[in-house]
Amino acid sequence: MGSNSVFRVGLLGHGTVGAAFHALLEERAEAIEAAVGMRPELSGVLTRGRGDFDDIVERSDLVVELMGGLDPALEYVMRAIRARKHVVTANKQVLSHHGEELYAAAREHGVQLRFEAAVCGVVPVIRVIHETLAAAHIERVHGIVNGTTNFILSEMTVTGASYEDALAEAQRLGYAEADPTDDVSGRDAAAKMAILARLAFGAPVHIDHVPHEGIENLSVEDIAYAKELGLSLKLVGSAERVGGGIAVRVFPTFLYAQHPLAAVNGSFNAVTIESPAITEITLSGPGAGGSQTASAVLGDVVSAMIPPPTLPAPAREQPLVTDVESAFYLHLEVADRPGVLAQVAEILGLQGVSVKSVVQRGLGDDARLDMVAHRVLESKFLAAVDLIGRLDFLRAPPRFIRVIEETF
Amino acid sequence: MGSNSVFRVGLLGHGTVGAAFHALLEERAEAIEAAVGMRPELSGVLTRGRGDFDDIVERSDLVVELMGGLDPALEYVMRAIRARKHVVTANKQVLSHHGEELYAAAREHGVQLRFEAAVCGVVPVIRVIHETLAAAHIERVHGIVNGTTNFILSEMTVTGASYEDALAEAQRLGYAEADPTDDVSGRDAAAKMAILARLAFGAPVHIDHVPHEGIENLSVEDIAYAKELGLSLKLVGSAERVGGGIAVRVFPTFLYAQHPLAAVNGSFNAVTIESPAITEITLSGPGAGGSQTASAVLGDVVSAMIPPPTLPAPAREQPLVTDVESAFYLHLEVADRPGVLAQVAEILGLQGVSVKSVVQRGLGDDARLDMVAHRVLESKFLAAVDLIGRLDFLRAPPRFIRVIEETF
Repeated sequence: MGSNSVFRVGLLGHGTVGAAFHALLEERAEAIEAAVGMRPELSGVLTRGRGDFDDIVERSDLVVELMGGLDPALEYVMRAIRARKHVVTANKQVLSHHGEELYAAAREHGVQLRFEAAVCGVVPVIRVIHETLAAAHIERVHGIVNGTTNFILSEMTVTGASYEDALAEAQRLGYAEADPTDDVSGRDAAAKMAILARLAFGAPVHIDHVPHEGIENLSVEDIAYAKELGLSLKLVGSAERVGGGIAVRVFPTFLYAQHPLAAVNGSFNAVTIESPAITEITLSGPGAGGSQTASAVLGDVVSAMIPPPTLPAPAREQPLVTDVESAFYLHLEVADRPGVLAQVAEILGLQGVSVKSVVQRGLGDDARLDMVAHRVLESKFLAAVDLIGRLDFLRAPPRFIRVIEETF
Repeated sequence: MGSNSVFRVGLLGHGTVGAAFHALLEERAEAIEAAVGMRPELSGVLTRGRGDFDDIVERSDLVVELMGGLDPALEYVMRAIRARKHVVTANKQVLSHHGEELYAAAREHGVQLRFEAAVCGVVPVIRVIHETLAAAHIERVHGIVNGTTNFILSEMTVTGASYEDALAEAQRLGYAEADPTDDVSGRDAAAKMAILARLAFGAPVHIDHVPHEGIENLSVEDIAYAKELGLSLKLVGSAERVGGGIAVRVFPTFLYAQHPLAAVNGSFNAVTIESPAITEITLSGPGAGGSQTASAVLGDVVSAMIPPPTLPAPAREQPLVTDVESAFYLHLEVADRPGVLAQVAEILGLQGVSVKSVVQRGLGDDARLDMVAHRVLESKFLAAVDLIGRLDFLRAPPRFIRVIEETF
């Protein structure tokens, strides 16, 4: 496949995700070539007004389908497979309606069909179920697989907003579409659970076999009452073995605080996979934004380019840096007298350490200062602590511990 | 490789993990054969008192190394590679000290070297960094990669125990060894971060290049003070790009509650991977118990048996079950008069619904009952709700929502 170490990628669809994929492919082409020995190059783009499908397929080693919907995406994916081209798709409709036909066609024609981006964007639930857990007996999969509904429920929980107001806010921020039916009814989640259940249990699961309830009838009162019982509300997709069969469903449900999905808030997605041998693993991350989905698609493209990279590529020396920036917690036991905080603050300021929050407690000889400093080079913070340690009103050596802040 | 569709696995080491792997391999052999067309079979076991290394290698397609330590594991892994056998290992010592030699040897001899189990047990951080994110530009990896220290810090946080008492409890429960130095000093975490940094950044990282601080000097007071600032304490391994270089370190650090690692408690492991295109994904699960580690090793063995399973195996019909067990939250608006709760409880009891917790609030016409019922067949719960809905003291239709409880 490929010629002159070029791997030709045909792109179907150039909306938000398609454009993000296009840009990411060009940005990462060089690094991919360095890692796998072939350079991925766009061989053609098909949009509603531009490009010829047959021509693009002819000139490609792999076709990326990012059109969405059933028609004409299903036909195009099938024709690409029959032309013996690998296919990477993010299309949950096509897979949840016609997965079996597509998997059979890909097997018959000896090509890869990869679809990590169809469920939970870049959260690697497809690869983990399909490869990491290939040898495991998966008992149950629980997932928050729709970011729109999770955003709405988080908003209702945090602000006490009604369902209608939270939906409007989600629409304003671009988390929900003008017609949100597919998301809020649970049908989008049902499509994703059909795909996951197929992989986890090896049974054919069509989206129409997945009963789903949505979030349209939930009230803030339900959320408030249940909070007092320690419960938080999520729209959860559930796929599990029951007796000799399987049950796949989507429904609003309460979770106890200890459940790994209970802390998944906003538009994030997460999946918990349970199996006797592993107990459970949880994968979480941002739902399907354009750039996240594009990353998942590109990961699939790279996997299709090469036999699995079972080994790290040869290493390249890079400087090991030891003086790096950190935020810090600093604890001082001080005599409570005028000017103490000012002197500490002055030393910190001279070293470029800026204080984010400070709490003073106790009186007289029992006073203490607990503060958090913003990110600063560790050498500067340590120099400040060294100076502070010499102040005569200190009753004990300063104690400090790094603080990791979210960088996004 | 293999003969007569048998894939021969030689096992080095038969301690806790080795024995768990042995049992799991036999338990799953049939399912693996059905999925990949080859049956994995143990060709020999080497322990201190039993078996001959050269003989086992000779009769194997793949060698699983679960001896631990550098000597003789390093020599055995190297000799297996030179004999052109695939190798799967859980040995972080060998990889963090001699990774480059081993990767080079495996490339030279055209064999796979897989090591998911060396970091975070069955949490698939190696595969995700190496495969899912092969095309991503990883900016930063933060990990809770040592279950012993996370258990100790969780214990100190929850119970207010001193470091010494929490360590003793960890030893009593088998989470810490009699000599806990390697764990509590951060050196075990440093070995794992060296392996992850090598994969994430493509730079050679030896364990001796990873500065590490342990948890031996942390006090419950630090934890208590910082809790008031909204911070929780973890031992974190950090690998990040800094300017043109990389920084890899292990240190105790505070996390704000919003950080995805903040909620990882007890002996669990978790890793957060940040990259501009994906923002961040988080993987979490149980640290290295025998059965979890064995699962990770078996996943690697299956991956080595076949080209990557890029497609689901042909599907097999399984009954789709719709009436399954759930726990339920039930909200009733009632007139507050004697016997109300008794009548509700009687109906629930007749349908086999048992109540886990109930809260009654309000007085007179504003009274309400919020309860959580234990798992029961949904049809039975719905029948009970139907009957309850007919009671004359109800002021509004019953509302109910499923509750997911942790099953472990």
